[in-house]
Amino acid sequence: MTKLTSENRMIQLLRKRYPRADLCLKKGIGDDAAVIHPGRSDEYWAITTDMLLEGVDFRLEWTRPFMLGCKSIAVNVSDLAAMGVQPRFFTVSLAVTEGTSERWVLEFYRGLNAPESAKGARLIGGDLSGSGNGILISITALGESKGRKILYRSGGRPGDFVYVTGILGQSAAGLTLLQSGKGRFRSRPRQDALRRHRTPEPRCEAGVWLAQSGLVRCMMDLSDGLSMDLPRMCSASGVGAEIELSNLPVFAKARLWDCDPVQLALHGGEDYELLFAVPEAKSRLLERKYPSRFPKITKIGKLIQNPKQISILEPGGKRRALPERGYDHFRPSNPDV
Amino acid sequence: MTKLTSENRMIQLLRKRYPRADLCLKKGIGDDAAVIHPGRSDEYWAITTDMLLEGVDFRLEWTRPFMLGCKSIAVNVSDLAAMGVQPRFFTVSLAVTEGTSERWVLEFYRGLNAPESAKGARLIGGDLSGSGNGILISITALGESKGRKILYRSGGRPGDFVYVTGILGQSAAGLTLLQSGKGRFRSRPRQDALRRHRTPEPRCEAGVWLAQSGLVRCMMDLSDGLSMDLPRMCSASGVGAEIELSNLPVFAKARLWDCDPVQLALHGGEDYELLFAVPEAKSRLLERKYPSRFPKITKIGKLIQNPKQISILEPGGKRRALPERGYDHFRPSNPDV
Repeated sequence: MTKLTSENRMIQLLRKRYPRADLCLKKGIGDDAAVIHPGRSDEYWAITTDMLLEGVDFRLEWTRPFMLGCKSIAVNVSDLAAMGVQPRFFTVSLAVTEGTSERWVLEFYRGLNAPESAKGARLIGGDLSGSGNGILISITALGESKGRKILYRSGGRPGDFVYVTGILGQSAAGLTLLQSGKGRFRSRPRQDALRRHRTPEPRCEAGVWLAQSGLVRCMMDLSDGLSMDLPRMCSASGVGAEIELSNLPVFAKARLWDCDPVQLALHGGEDYELLFAVPEAKSRLLERKYPSRFPKITKIGKLIQNPKQISILEPGGKRRALPERGYDHFRPSNPDV
Repeated sequence: MTKLTSENRMIQLLRKRYPRADLCLKKGIGDDAAVIHPGRSDEYWAITTDMLLEGVDFRLEWTRPFMLGCKSIAVNVSDLAAMGVQPRFFTVSLAVTEGTSERWVLEFYRGLNAPESAKGARLIGGDLSGSGNGILISITALGESKGRKILYRSGGRPGDFVYVTGILGQSAAGLTLLQSGKGRFRSRPRQDALRRHRTPEPRCEAGVWLAQSGLVRCMMDLSDGLSMDLPRMCSASGVGAEIELSNLPVFAKARLWDCDPVQLALHGGEDYELLFAVPEAKSRLLERKYPSRFPKITKIGKLIQNPKQISILEPGGKRRALPERGYDHFRPSNPDV
C-alpha cells in the first residue's frame, strides 16, 4: 500500500479520476475553488471548502473563539478572493467537545460573521455535532463572479511579471511568537504579527478589482507559503518562475524576535495574500491604476519558459532553486517555519 | 457558562442571531438545506452540509472505505432529497490519520461517486488534510430545484396525513448487529439491515417526484429517528401529530436478533427515508399517482392542532406522548437504540 505522503500527488490522482465533464462545471478539482454555471443564469459561481482542526490548524490556548471564527471564514473567503469573485454565502460544520459552552459557540459564530473576515459572505446553514477529540470546523463558501471574470491558477505565460499583495511572512512571524511562548509581550510589531496570524484579512476587494481589471492572467492566494504555492501556479500554467529575493515584501520587524524575514516570506504559510501574474506590457498600467486604498502590490519576479525551474535570484546575482518548504499536511517532517 | 446540551436549542439560538435577510436567500438556518436564488437565474439552489467523524458517526472496523464514501455522500444527498431538489454538485473535506493509504482515499472517493449514493451529484472539489485523531469527513452538496418547487419542513397543517417512504428501523437494526458483534452472520435479513446501515440509499427520485406532484405540503428526511425528526417538522409547521403505531412500516425481521421492531422504527436513526404531510383531500390522489417503482409510501398518522402534542396511538386505542429518544449529539445519554 502506498502511504499518503503528498497532498499535491493525491490531488493529481483524484483530478485524473474525476475529470470535469459537466457542462455546468467550469472548473473542477485543483484550483482554489470550483466554478459552476448554474441553470440559465449568466453568472458563474465559485465554491470552496476548507477544514480546520484543533491541534493541527489551531490551538485553543493561542486564540479565542471569536478570533477562531474570524480566521475560519477568512481562509475560505480568501480562496474566493483568489479567483476574484465576490463572497456571498457560506455553510459551517462544527464539531465541539464535551463541555464546550453555548457562549463559546456563539462567540465563534460572531467571528464567522465579522465583516472584515466574511467580506459579505452570509451564513446560510450548517451542521453541529459532538467530537471526542478536539474541535473541528469545516466551511464551504460560495462566491459570485461579475461578468464571468474569474481568474484561475492557470493562464500565466513566460515573461509575465509576478506580483504579490501586502507583506509576506507576517503570519508565520506571529506563529513563532506563539510557539516560543512570547505571544504575551505587547509591542506593536508583535501585535501586528499576532493579529495577522489569528485574524487574517482576505484580500477580496483587491482580488475582485484585479479580476475585473482585465490586466491579470492568473491568480491564487498564498496559504501554504510562497515556496509551496508558486510551484502550484507554475504547474497549472505550465511555466517556471524566477523570484528576486531583494524585491520580496518581507516583514523586517520579525528580526526583533530572531526570525529571518526572508525565510518567513519564502516558506511561511497563512499570509492569505494574493499571488498573480501580469503580462509585461500591462504591468505599468496595472501599477498606475491599482487603487492605493488596497494593500500595496509588489513585483517579485517573473514567469519563465522552463516549467521545471522555480528559482530565486539572490542579491549578488546568484541563482538557486527554491526548495518547497511550505506546509504540506502529509510530508513526514513539516518545517515549523 | 451554559453547557451545550441540545442541538435543537443551539440551532434556535443561532437562527435568532442570523436571520434570513438576503433577498437571494430563500431559506436559512434550520431546515434540511439552505435555499438560494443566485443571480438572475430562474432556478433555486439548495445547499446542505454534514460532518461525519470516526468514533462518533462511524467506526472503521464496521465498514470499508468504499461503503463509508457511499454513506458520506448519501446522508448529504438525502437532505436534498428531503426538499425535492435534484443533487448536482458536492465538495468534500477529508482529514485522514497518519498511515492512511492512497488506496484507502481512492476507495473512499469511489464510494463518494457511486451512482446509487450520489444520485447525480458530481464531485467538484475539496480539501485534504491530516488529522491526529481519527478520520473526519465534511461534505457540502448542492441541488437544483425544478420550477422552484421546493418542500420545506414548514407548511404542514392540522388534518394533513403523515406519510413515510420505505421501512423504518432497518438501519438501527443493522447497527445493533454491529454493536453486538453479530455483523458477520450472513442471513438475508441481516444483510439487508447491514446494507441499509452502511450504504443507505437517499430517496431522491421519490423526493423530486413528491415535490413536483404539488400534492405535498411539507417534507424532511429521517436521519435522527422519527421521535426526534417528527417534532422538528411539527415545530416548523406549528402543529402537533398523532402516529398510529400499528401503521408503522417496521422491519419485523429485527426480532430474529431480539430487537423490538416498533422501538427501532420510532427511535432508530439513519434510515434516510422521507417524512411528509399531505392534505387529507389529496391523499388518495397521491397514493394512486405515486409510481410503484419508488419505495412504497405508508400513511402513519396525521397532523393535529395542538403544537405541544406529539403522540402515538397504541393498537388498543390508548394514546401516549412520544418521547424524543432519537439521536442528539449533545444529550448526556444518547440511547444506543
